[in-house]
Amino acid sequence: MNVVFEDRFWAPRARLMAEEVIPHQWKALNDQIPGAEPSHAVENFRIAAGEVQGAFHGMVFQDSDVAKWLEAACYSLQYAPNPELERLIDEVVELLGRAQRDDGYLNTYFTIAAPDRRWKDMSFGHELYCAGHLIEAAVAHYEATGKTNFLSIARKYADLIRREIGPNPGQRRIYDGHEEIELALVKLYRAAGDESYLQLAKYFIDERGRQPSFLLDEPTFGGAYKDRWFHLDYHQAHAPVREQRTAEGHAVRAMYLYSAMADLAWLTDDGSLKDALFRLWDNVTQKRMYITGGIGSQEHGERFTIDYDLPNDTAYAETCAAIGLVFWASRMFRLDRDAKYADVMERALYNGVLSGISLDGKRYFYVNPLEVHPPTARFRHDMQHVKTERVPWFGCACCPPNIARLVASLNRYVCTAENGNVYYHLYAGSRSEFEVNGRSVRLAMETDYPWDGRIAVSVECAEPVSFNLFFRWPGWADEADVSVNGEPVDARGALQKGYIRLAGEWRNGDRIELHFPMRVRRMAAHPLVRENAGKVALQRGPLVYCLEEADNGANLADIRLSADPQFRTEFRQDLMGGIVVIRADGYRSDSEAWGNALYGEYSGRLRKTTVTFVPYAYWGNRQPGEMTVWIRQQERG
Amino acid sequence: MNVVFEDRFWAPRARLMAEEVIPHQWKALNDQIPGAEPSHAVENFRIAAGEVQGAFHGMVFQDSDVAKWLEAACYSLQYAPNPELERLIDEVVELLGRAQRDDGYLNTYFTIAAPDRRWKDMSFGHELYCAGHLIEAAVAHYEATGKTNFLSIARKYADLIRREIGPNPGQRRIYDGHEEIELALVKLYRAAGDESYLQLAKYFIDERGRQPSFLLDEPTFGGAYKDRWFHLDYHQAHAPVREQRTAEGHAVRAMYLYSAMADLAWLTDDGSLKDALFRLWDNVTQKRMYITGGIGSQEHGERFTIDYDLPNDTAYAETCAAIGLVFWASRMFRLDRDAKYADVMERALYNGVLSGISLDGKRYFYVNPLEVHPPTARFRHDMQHVKTERVPWFGCACCPPNIARLVASLNRYVCTAENGNVYYHLYAGSRSEFEVNGRSVRLAMETDYPWDGRIAVSVECAEPVSFNLFFRWPGWADEADVSVNGEPVDARGALQKGYIRLAGEWRNGDRIELHFPMRVRRMAAHPLVRENAGKVALQRGPLVYCLEEADNGANLADIRLSADPQFRTEFRQDLMGGIVVIRADGYRSDSEAWGNALYGEYSGRLRKTTVTFVPYAYWGNRQPGEMTVWIRQQERG
Repeated sequence: MNVVFEDRFWAPRARLMAEEVIPHQWKALNDQIPGAEPSHAVENFRIAAGEVQGAFHGMVFQDSDVAKWLEAACYSLQYAPNPELERLIDEVVELLGRAQRDDGYLNTYFTIAAPDRRWKDMSFGHELYCAGHLIEAAVAHYEATGKTNFLSIARKYADLIRREIGPNPGQRRIYDGHEEIELALVKLYRAAGDESYLQLAKYFIDERGRQPSFLLDEPTFGGAYKDRWFHLDYHQAHAPVREQRTAEGHAVRAMYLYSAMADLAWLTDDGSLKDALFRLWDNVTQKRMYITGGIGSQEHGERFTIDYDLPNDTAYAETCAAIGLVFWASRMFRLDRDAKYADVMERALYNGVLSGISLDGKRYFYVNPLEVHPPTARFRHDMQHVKTERVPWFGCACCPPNIARLVASLNRYVCTAENGNVYYHLYAGSRSEFEVNGRSVRLAMETDYPWDGRIAVSVECAEPVSFNLFFRWPGWADEADVSVNGEPVDARGALQKGYIRLAGEWRNGDRIELHFPMRVRRMAAHPLVRENAGKVALQRGPLVYCLEEADNGANLADIRLSADPQFRTEFRQDLMGGIVVIRADGYRSDSEAWGNALYGEYSGRLRKTTVTFVPYAYWGNRQPGEMTVWIRQQERG
Repeated sequence: MNVVFEDRFWAPRARLMAEEVIPHQWKALNDQIPGAEPSHAVENFRIAAGEVQGAFHGMVFQDSDVAKWLEAACYSLQYAPNPELERLIDEVVELLGRAQRDDGYLNTYFTIAAPDRRWKDMSFGHELYCAGHLIEAAVAHYEATGKTNFLSIARKYADLIRREIGPNPGQRRIYDGHEEIELALVKLYRAAGDESYLQLAKYFIDERGRQPSFLLDEPTFGGAYKDRWFHLDYHQAHAPVREQRTAEGHAVRAMYLYSAMADLAWLTDDGSLKDALFRLWDNVTQKRMYITGGIGSQEHGERFTIDYDLPNDTAYAETCAAIGLVFWASRMFRLDRDAKYADVMERALYNGVLSGISLDGKRYFYVNPLEVHPPTARFRHDMQHVKTERVPWFGCACCPPNIARLVASLNRYVCTAENGNVYYHLYAGSRSEFEVNGRSVRLAMETDYPWDGRIAVSVECAEPVSFNLFFRWPGWADEADVSVNGEPVDARGALQKGYIRLAGEWRNGDRIELHFPMRVRRMAAHPLVRENAGKVALQRGPLVYCLEEADNGANLADIRLSADPQFRTEFRQDLMGGIVVIRADGYRSDSEAWGNALYGEYSGRLRKTTVTFVPYAYWGNRQPGEMTVWIRQQERG
């Protein structure tokens, strides 16, 4: 299965990754960007390899920045061959090889700074987390280049882990405080074909949450805070994973765990694991997720809180957590082939993930609030995590290379081909090539998604081939007009768990047309979401919209939509590379009548205004200012 | 001037202070209340006096709890003579005398725990703050009992301070990190008639904010946090006080400073100090005050933030800060005799102060939020300061004795008699006795305030006496019907800076009737207060109302008032000792139609509901549950 974007949304972003972001991040990892927080990540490997003198600098998981960058760079080679980049990748891989200990161990922090702490700080050492990222990068490298040198490094390390950690006598019966190794081992199993890696992943999943937890005995447990927000549930270690019913703790950790659980449940057909996943899925997506697909609403612990607690202006909604939700959602599909997973994947991707990176690819949000009032966010102690503008890099730089590796591999999330079934989860102008029932087929998709819901798919194949084509009926679409070679199809009748199933013998030149009309939808939140009471958010297609001060002036909180707003949409090529803007009628308070009083009798005096919405993912790409996703909605009593 | 309450609102509260609260707090100060946080405050004095062995325990300002209790107890003696209590007070005063050092110094923390740190930790040592509270207590003791022993102790201490601290060579040129000594010295000056105390107060006021500040050189500067919220502005030391234009820093500190500034400005007719106060008054009351009179919106630093930043659910609004606002407002009256000060005093008193104590006087709020959702407040890290129920005592117990001393001395805030003018600031069923133009006059006020706006005043005097009677036209009243001996008065024509001036020769039996009709008013906040956008709060008379879960069920955030609500009021004798309840028509979302989805298309489906409001000051006196002051208001587009 290979998908190449050829549209004006993802293709330029994939190019941006290859041409700008990956080279730019390499500079960041080498401390070559003026004004950006230093990384030292590559230098740590040189020190660990004994090639330069120096001390370890950065987070204990600084290695993972290099690994994620390598993974992203390898993905980019697949659609943007670049011999110079490939040479650079080879150099880095060789450096990793030199930094690897003889026994296979490969972690610069523990090698340089804490050699006596190996496997002793599972709570916050991120040792297996870093190992997981190295493994993911190695698998990507193998897939992109066919070379096995990086894969060998990863296997050597994984073999060490398998020997030293596990449930058997003489082994350490531990797991990592930050999940990641689990899903990486599944990838390694699939790339290397060695089932022991799958077994090791299963051990980690089965072991997590066994009580009493060994984590409690570690001096590092609780991190710097030692409070209840950094307790076992922070690590999803408060109960065996199969018994967990609500999404708890650090949101990125949870997503990586659930992703691995989904892999395992699929590969081992583990019913109790599936049941746990279905419950956790419902809890996250029905009670603990922002409309942007952002998750983890509290800064302290970067974590889930309680059902329906989704504050907009103090939101954490880490970019990496939304990325993790994409990982998890894409894996959930395999468990029961329901379009609801891709609906959430699409929501997170087009909103809470993309908001994490500027249009030029050089600045990032770590935290993705749904409402920002800059003077307040700058002053308030409880909003210090909220940045009012994207920044060039972070001391804790997990998000930038994470978004790079996701966007550079996004072609892998578009569709799934297996057992004579081809599922389209995402829509984008693209060319897909795959084998089905032993035949090679190409599908050319034309669409201006996400700006327009018209999609045309042309079949290219040397000879007729029978297979089922499934197209996701997006959760946001009321209607679907579908035709095959001009003949209307009863889309509703063809619906199978949210996918429109088109069975048949496909011939070269067959043309499928789908139209999911993109109406502007006023979305409300569940009545138990206190923060959004009385408010709506606009969504058009997969894009959640927001108001920015640049278009609407200051004091966005004062603006409300009229009771029956007429929405006017316009594609503005001149704005931020081309976006659909939404306009509607609304009202503001008659502020001038107020004078100086802080409180006064309610007058209800309003004046009309035009409200302008832009996609949330695009906010903060013009001058700094206020932003809000949720806007008050006048209602008829 | 002597005022005695004879109503069903304040008289029972004054009695409660004398009969329940003051004895109960004495137990708290002696660690005799099971389940309450220990105080050790009295024991510290015994240790300092060398009468028992032991270590200092409590906050560095633990002495001030005893001082404020003494002050409250002395006030109570004036309206509730109690020989047993007076004996106890005498014992405590004697204990203080024995704990006082030979040179006059009197502070148990520095005596027991840090004798070498005297005058060296002005940032957080609270040394002069504690001295100030001792002085206030001593003045109250002198006024209540006529005894001078406590006053002598206080003077001896003040004399030491005057010798050791000041601008002259050989003196320490310092001031306290927590204001309080300044206003206490003014009281001492007036009680003892020694102008040097006024001069010392003036020194402290003039010295504060001189740059560079000596505070910066102290190792304790910045407290535990050493961050920008604990910088010079935290202590109102960022600029000379006459140059301060906005209320900054710790709210209680600010109120105590501004109170002393107002004393000084009045006593010394200091124009630049007055100008600063008028500016600060406008800033606090027009931009930084909750509708309850609560101030200091941020927990971190217990402080002011920025204009219009008034979050309801993370509000700090410390009880002591609202009390401080009462102190300040009452003093501002003297500067330009405007009723706006008493309007704010009344607002703080009936709402943000009274909410701090339970109806039985035994439980307290330190923090007074305007919105509480218990499950959220319990979980959320940024709401840990919010208590969902009042508690018996605090480790930092500034608020309970502070509210006791204010309520026990509230008769002093009702009216002002001077120079042939008698001003009524507050209304309460009461008897007032005063000298005016050399004659003794008694005024008997009958009213059911704050439940009803009808007020009747009878003059009692042996012979006719000429003086001006000023009655505040409350800011909340649209209308005023006033008559003297049945003859209507043109109240609007008699208005003088918000007071209705009734001049004349008053005779025994004269009867003045005032009626300020108490309409339920829907109050809105300035359009720049983001947190209250689209919402109203009900106010009736001086009382701000709120919704409680006990009356309205859960999920208060979902309730909105209808566009034209008809308010129904009823005095409910059976409810919390008797309150006026307000009912109105409103709407809730049609939650049942929602199902499980977290987000769905806006439907506008509502169902009618009745909304019940109770006075904010009474919240939390029944079962625990949600509370909100601000409620969404449907509006006509």
